[in-house]
Amino acid sequence: MNLELLCKNAAAIKYEMQTLSTEKKNQVLEQGAQALVNCQEEILKANELDMQKAVEKGMPQGLQDRLRLTVSRIEAMAEGLLQIANLPDPVGEIIETFDRPNGLHIEKCRVPIGVIGIIYEARPNVTADAFGLCFKTGNVVILKGGSDAFYSNQKIVEVLRRVLGENGISVDALTMIEDTSRETVAAFMKMHRYVNLLIPRGGAGLIRSVVENSTIPVIETGTGNCHIYVDAEADLDMAISIIFNAKTQRIGVCNACESLVIHEKIKDALLPKLAEKLREKQVEIRGDEQVCEILPESVPATEEDYGKEYLDYILSMKTVGSIEEAIAHINRYNTGHSEAIITKDKAHAEQFLREVDAACVYVNASTRFTDGFEFGFGAEIGISTQMLHARGPMGLRELTSYKYQIYGNGQVRA
Amino acid sequence: MNLELLCKNAAAIKYEMQTLSTEKKNQVLEQGAQALVNCQEEILKANELDMQKAVEKGMPQGLQDRLRLTVSRIEAMAEGLLQIANLPDPVGEIIETFDRPNGLHIEKCRVPIGVIGIIYEARPNVTADAFGLCFKTGNVVILKGGSDAFYSNQKIVEVLRRVLGENGISVDALTMIEDTSRETVAAFMKMHRYVNLLIPRGGAGLIRSVVENSTIPVIETGTGNCHIYVDAEADLDMAISIIFNAKTQRIGVCNACESLVIHEKIKDALLPKLAEKLREKQVEIRGDEQVCEILPESVPATEEDYGKEYLDYILSMKTVGSIEEAIAHINRYNTGHSEAIITKDKAHAEQFLREVDAACVYVNASTRFTDGFEFGFGAEIGISTQMLHARGPMGLRELTSYKYQIYGNGQVRA
Repeated sequence: MNLELLCKNAAAIKYEMQTLSTEKKNQVLEQGAQALVNCQEEILKANELDMQKAVEKGMPQGLQDRLRLTVSRIEAMAEGLLQIANLPDPVGEIIETFDRPNGLHIEKCRVPIGVIGIIYEARPNVTADAFGLCFKTGNVVILKGGSDAFYSNQKIVEVLRRVLGENGISVDALTMIEDTSRETVAAFMKMHRYVNLLIPRGGAGLIRSVVENSTIPVIETGTGNCHIYVDAEADLDMAISIIFNAKTQRIGVCNACESLVIHEKIKDALLPKLAEKLREKQVEIRGDEQVCEILPESVPATEEDYGKEYLDYILSMKTVGSIEEAIAHINRYNTGHSEAIITKDKAHAEQFLREVDAACVYVNASTRFTDGFEFGFGAEIGISTQMLHARGPMGLRELTSYKYQIYGNGQVRA
Repeated sequence: MNLELLCKNAAAIKYEMQTLSTEKKNQVLEQGAQALVNCQEEILKANELDMQKAVEKGMPQGLQDRLRLTVSRIEAMAEGLLQIANLPDPVGEIIETFDRPNGLHIEKCRVPIGVIGIIYEARPNVTADAFGLCFKTGNVVILKGGSDAFYSNQKIVEVLRRVLGENGISVDALTMIEDTSRETVAAFMKMHRYVNLLIPRGGAGLIRSVVENSTIPVIETGTGNCHIYVDAEADLDMAISIIFNAKTQRIGVCNACESLVIHEKIKDALLPKLAEKLREKQVEIRGDEQVCEILPESVPATEEDYGKEYLDYILSMKTVGSIEEAIAHINRYNTGHSEAIITKDKAHAEQFLREVDAACVYVNASTRFTDGFEFGFGAEIGISTQMLHARGPMGLRELTSYKYQIYGNGQVRA
């Protein structure tokens, strides 16, 4: 279908979506979950086509694994929709009320954003997930998935649209842009007349391209050059446990630790023990001069290392002489995602919380907790690393806007 | 100065700004107010240069009036800064706290946005105002004013920067882009590496250009094609009083009423009396067939009329057969600003509030109340007409973001 028409159709039904009751939306999500399970053979067959293409083009094993669907992965997608059905509906919530001296009564009320576009890469489970989150919040969603997952995405969308239709809801509440050419994606990013928000989910390159080319308001998500700073006074065992967790518990995620900042007073006590622990996972260390002196097996870090999101078993290390230097280093290189301090010093903890510029700043905990589920939001569309609208884990509430509803009895302005 | 360097310098001091105490910020605002009054002769002299240019180029009287500064207008600017000093500081406010089962304590805390760019047109009072609002919220501000007010803006900025310097604060907390060429403005809009938010204040053309060209997140402000819908059952006197107020109390503002939607059941009773009232201000009526039948002096409305923000003594009128038709008409033509229903029917009032898509939706009150002061925010940087971040009047709170501050005692992710 013509791209502009597709976007126009999406915009045309946004008000219909906004009037759906919570019960109706939950019913659709539950039926959608059931339909995914019922149609698992169709979905697996479609996924098989994607996998064949992937093998033919020599896709690396790691990416093949992300792309592959199985019965249990389809069940997990279905489970995700059920979880979203069970979350409270934020639409219609009165956030605040106030009364003016002239008698006007003002209510600030949560409403859907409208039409949300999502551009994402390989994993097909995002398809069901993004639909569930947007649908529950009364938004229309237009998906542009990666070409590698084309057949899987197409089938999942087909199954879910069927459920929409069976429930008397416009199937355009969920559409997929099937033409994955660069030109079409570029044109999609200019559809601000119809699309209210664009969320890119994927690597730094995708996000940069969207930020630089979109005329639709964008929420940047997901790049995380996350630091852990070990202060002069810190519990060494806690530091090692947190660093090991944040670096190695899952390496390919945006909230993994990529860089360590160490106060020089604690380096001699910390580094040998830490290096021993990190050796369990063959973590490569790229350190400054002081680090390399203590850990001769480490590689000298370059300027580039400090700005890098490795997503790998690599950790950069930088020694500092003060907490101020640590904060300045972090504010220079971080991506506004998640940063942590390990300290026994309460004043330093507060200073770090206040002065480090990131969506989530931790005292004595792993950066890996930056996640909608871990925060108790019940679901997540991504982690915002920008300042506007939402910052950090984005759950259902973050997929809404608000309006002011004002009750008068004839007030005019003097 | 080189534009990129200017933006880089602004970004370089944003963390310094974020640590300023409320007392310090208020002191600067108070001294700024005093300095504007003390330097009124310099400012008036600079304004005289702008006025001479304006006369030479034959600027219309209305625009000349907006450009002109007087002692009392400078005093009003100073008063504006004092008012901002007296408002509560939103920075540091804990918006929400929650505890997780694993013992993590999470605080959602209000923080400055960072560097805010403002592109605006003729009125030089915006210069002091924008500085005051951004400074109070711990943001760095880069101003790009209109070339017509160049000398006035330059002088106001100079006076305020002097006060910053005297208080030991980097003068780059307030900078003005002095090169007002199109190329420079275009380049400014691409400075997303340094600038966190861009707010255009001005006409529809300026706003469109910013939306289409900026890579910096934008908040659209100010275009208002505002409707009043008079329902089948409505208090006629109230309707006339509200329509007259919303249309004529001030015509050049974004919350003025531009279009009337009338239920056909009430048109015969309402229109003659309303037209008589509007005649007091020589308001031109552009109506559909049914309106023209009742009011022969009115001009037939074209499709274009319904989409138009006149900012003039002109009002378009459209007859509808139902509230649903009224809502559909409004959602088709409005700009997401302010819409009102005049009705005695509570169910219709609720339906209108729920289904009309605008920042502010009124029952039985004038659209003219969409304003930061009228809402009790104490100040306003503009009226957002988009869905993200802030909608409607934007006061101090809307110039902030948030961060999550998380307190742990060694938590790692399982």
